[in-house]
Amino acid sequence: MPEILVVGSVAYDDVQTPFDRRRDVLGGAASYFALAASRYAPVHVVAVVGEDFRDTDIARLRGEGIDVAGIERRAGRSFRWHGRYDYDMSAAETLHTDLGVFAEWHPIVPDDKREVPYVFLANIDPDIQLDLLDQVRAPKLVVMDSMNYWLEYKRDAVAKVMSRADVVCVNEGEARQFAQTFSIIRAAREILALGPTALVVKRGEHGAMLFLRDGGVFWSPAYPLEKVQDPTGAGDSFAGGFVGHLASVGRTDAAELRRAVVHGTVSASFAVETFSVDGVAAATPGAVDERYRLLRSLVDIGAGAAEDTAPGVE
Amino acid sequence: MPEILVVGSVAYDDVQTPFDRRRDVLGGAASYFALAASRYAPVHVVAVVGEDFRDTDIARLRGEGIDVAGIERRAGRSFRWHGRYDYDMSAAETLHTDLGVFAEWHPIVPDDKREVPYVFLANIDPDIQLDLLDQVRAPKLVVMDSMNYWLEYKRDAVAKVMSRADVVCVNEGEARQFAQTFSIIRAAREILALGPTALVVKRGEHGAMLFLRDGGVFWSPAYPLEKVQDPTGAGDSFAGGFVGHLASVGRTDAAELRRAVVHGTVSASFAVETFSVDGVAAATPGAVDERYRLLRSLVDIGAGAAEDTAPGVE
Repeated sequence: MPEILVVGSVAYDDVQTPFDRRRDVLGGAASYFALAASRYAPVHVVAVVGEDFRDTDIARLRGEGIDVAGIERRAGRSFRWHGRYDYDMSAAETLHTDLGVFAEWHPIVPDDKREVPYVFLANIDPDIQLDLLDQVRAPKLVVMDSMNYWLEYKRDAVAKVMSRADVVCVNEGEARQFAQTFSIIRAAREILALGPTALVVKRGEHGAMLFLRDGGVFWSPAYPLEKVQDPTGAGDSFAGGFVGHLASVGRTDAAELRRAVVHGTVSASFAVETFSVDGVAAATPGAVDERYRLLRSLVDIGAGAAEDTAPGVE
Repeated sequence: MPEILVVGSVAYDDVQTPFDRRRDVLGGAASYFALAASRYAPVHVVAVVGEDFRDTDIARLRGEGIDVAGIERRAGRSFRWHGRYDYDMSAAETLHTDLGVFAEWHPIVPDDKREVPYVFLANIDPDIQLDLLDQVRAPKLVVMDSMNYWLEYKRDAVAKVMSRADVVCVNEGEARQFAQTFSIIRAAREILALGPTALVVKRGEHGAMLFLRDGGVFWSPAYPLEKVQDPTGAGDSFAGGFVGHLASVGRTDAAELRRAVVHGTVSASFAVETFSVDGVAAATPGAVDERYRLLRSLVDIGAGAAEDTAPGVE
């Protein structure tokens, strides 16, 4: 089975919602991504943590079958993020960020992982993402994420990463920010003009859209959840299910990209149901399959012959 | 072909957006609904207008094949609404409402229209909606709409209308308000418990959801538009496409209800592309069909045998 490489943060989060709070819980883009993707295919993590990082958390990732040999431990503190959500749970307010050892980290992909075919570049300085693209050798698929900070302060570097990636995976606000337009369609056109095959626009509770350079468009609803406990990690878990599915089938054609979006949506749904990575870690293959099927039925306009007849318009 | 009866407002609107403005243009729930539904089946309108109502606007509706014999003209002014949209175009701010002759109107369904099988009760005082339900004779399908004002001040009457309707068609905010919960799923459960077969929750640019009393759920994306000029009438146009499709096929089973939601979405997309009813009036059968097909392809997870295999989860 094709394997997956992720480069990104492994961190501790302090998360507040109007209803609850968790301190010092396992977080970071690479943690969410790896746990979600490991449901589908073997995952190698390249990350950095500080002296304060708990061995039990490394063991937890390893216990899920994730290759943690690329997680470097350095003198200093681990990356810590403190955020808060308001009642509508849609956007996080960052109260404090302590980059710790992440600040000066310049990731090196271990030599034996440079030929891993499926690569996810989590949100990180785009100059570092460009350097990572020079380190890996002819990957079959590169998926990249970014964030508003880099879009504002390193726009040109972000555009270069986008032009070298196969799939750009950003949220709605980032797509709008990058293209300086409210229209998602225009933003998609502008990003795709840079060169990627596909753009995924994550829209939170409103699902995710896939835009292909050849003009194809796909839209998956979000998995309907009665209760959202903590939206942190939704986007990285989405990427985990997305890349995970593509690696598991070993294909990246339009049909599989559509299914990958649905798998990303499923992964994100597990992430937001709990604080920290607990939901993603608890997702069983059976539960993943059940949610995939529900999402498919949710958008099913109707099976059978009637589906192929023209709608009832005179 | 089964026919459709709509009872609601025929009005003049004054609409401002950050980009443009129109004064004294044809509006009102029944106008939007009738024009959208008339693409699918014959429509009879029951409404009231004032002395100031232009004959050319009545003639315009008649010219679209709509039966306007039930539009009563009374001494006084026509219903006028003045609203404004902000940059995100999602919610209207009402600047002024002049009910005019609509204020004292107590609609009577003409005797020869009491057996029309498909009935849409547009947003109007719920006590009047209840009275209308006593006037019509065993309709095959009753669809009702309402608005925040009635949900707040006449909640019990609205609940009674919901319990007697087959389909409740409200927007996201109204569903939340009625059920006093942020969760759309919980709101749906509460409304369906009152008795309707189905609930449609309109979510603007995020599409529409259909909840069936038997537990079925369906989600349609909104039609992706590059430019929205005026969201006024989107909900009533949605209802027009929704009821229109059901009347045109003469069935109201779960499969047709799903397709009806997609047709509603298509109708709404024409409505918001222009000011007033111009977009709905200009929609040709070919254009409707094209948008229906695009929406179907937009959510198509993949055709062929692969669709029926379990997703790539180990």
